Amino acid sequence: MKIAITGTGLIGGSMALALRAKGVASHIIGVENNHDNAVKAVGLGLVDKCVELDEAIATADLIILATPINTAELLLPIILDKVNRQVVFDVGSTKKSLCDAVAQHPKRGRFVATHPMWGTENSGPSAAISTAFVQKASVICNKNDSDEDALQLVEKIYGILQMHLLYMEAGAHDMHVAYISHISHITSFALANTVLEKEKEEDAIFELASAGFESTVRLAKSNAAMWVPIFMQNRENILDVLNEHITQLRKFKSSLEKENYEYLGELIEKANGIRRILK
Amino acid sequence: MKIAITGTGLIGGSMALALRAKGVASHIIGVENNHDNAVKAVGLGLVDKCVELDEAIATADLIILATPINTAELLLPIILDKVNRQVVFDVGSTKKSLCDAVAQHPKRGRFVATHPMWGTENSGPSAAISTAFVQKASVICNKNDSDEDALQLVEKIYGILQMHLLYMEAGAHDMHVAYISHISHITSFALANTVLEKEKEEDAIFELASAGFESTVRLAKSNAAMWVPIFMQNRENILDVLNEHITQLRKFKSSLEKENYEYLGELIEKANGIRRILK
Repeated sequence: MKIAITGTGLIGGSMALALRAKGVASHIIGVENNHDNAVKAVGLGLVDKCVELDEAIATADLIILATPINTAELLLPIILDKVNRQVVFDVGSTKKSLCDAVAQHPKRGRFVATHPMWGTENSGPSAAISTAFVQKASVICNKNDSDEDALQLVEKIYGILQMHLLYMEAGAHDMHVAYISHISHITSFALANTVLEKEKEEDAIFELASAGFESTVRLAKSNAAMWVPIFMQNRENILDVLNEHITQLRKFKSSLEKENYEYLGELIEKANGIRRILK
Repeated sequence: MKIAITGTGLIGGSMALALRAKGVASHIIGVENNHDNAVKAVGLGLVDKCVELDEAIATADLIILATPINTAELLLPIILDKVNRQVVFDVGSTKKSLCDAVAQHPKRGRFVATHPMWGTENSGPSAAISTAFVQKASVICNKNDSDEDALQLVEKIYGILQMHLLYMEAGAHDMHVAYISHISHITSFALANTVLEKEKEEDAIFELASAGFESTVRLAKSNAAMWVPIFMQNRENILDVLNEHITQLRKFKSSLEKENYEYLGELIEKANGIRRILK
């Protein structure tokens, strides 16, 4: 199968490696507006070549949208205008805005809205990993809006990539990921800024940084080009959960200020409840 | 060398395993006020036997304080009253309160205040790991208050455990660890409580939780018995950095509320600066 991937960074590049390794792709065509990334993607063997979008659409059986989500929202209607038999799926972190953007498109059925739940704090073609998606979940949204054959092809591909599938409405998806993915990034960005602001002795951070600190601050390395559009598109859900998070932090602050250590212990024991969910 | 370890949990147990593996300890005596943990520590081979504190002090050449830090502060003066030639060191996460507690003790010199920078979210004897400390930093505080031979013994032991040493005043240590360890735990506890509060569909958390979420929320599994005393003893430094963290989160909130995405991008790019320090 000839596959075109628009955006050959962390997710698109990893998808390319996995699809080739699993024998799904006979040819992989990249579409990449960043020249350096295009050269890297070919050099690293992620894609066979990079071409213009129109040529990629005309050549490919399957088109994967793996750009930042604001670009994906611009590209998807253009791509759908030009597809006929082909299938298009995206891999973005928010779903509602993209689904809304093509809800009335006459070829909406050729599109499948997906979100493979994997990522790292790194970006660009060199961050791609062939085993990225193995044993992870992938969400398919608004599946009834996709043609039966398009949905089946995408389900089959995720199966070959050894992902398990979840089905949700786009709005519910965006709410859930605000809680369990997007807020983690905001707390990590804010924690990095806190430490950079307060700790003027960078040597001390470097030398003392424990695994715990690295773990909580790792996501702060994530890039703005990917995350600003996610925060824009999921603004209301994120504000909702961010307000709750600030409220929770204020409870810790209040227990310390009032030296109410019984309450502090209760807050910690409540947080330990996450063990029920994450082994 | 006969070594007594008071508190045979995550840190004390790991210390026991490492000291035996490296041939430093010929005998390891546990002191453990929790009967279940005492049985486990012997059963897992962390210690040869568990005895009362007085017997341990009388028998051992070296005494390691590895209890929660509030207990360590109670035990240290009692231990120093009874030691003669022996050396005592602690492994707690705060240093000022403990150093202050024995500053005027006639046998202060037999004590070395240390903080090996390693931990996990798990606790108890079964969480102990023999390779815990390899290639990590250990901090020695107020070294001029320790006798030369006591300091040299502890330095030698950390060297054998393959740790590199840093030297600080206790007050500076407590400030630095507030920034780069203690605040990470508070954000993680608060994040767990946020998600447990907002996300009523625990199945969704379980199925959607990505590596990023697990990474930021992992520390929320840490236990209250260890952490409440740390937050108590380092209250002022932690409140200072917690206030800054809430201020930083409010900047993200404000940029979203005002839809000022240029500012949001700047906040993220500033946070990316953590890459300078953590590779």
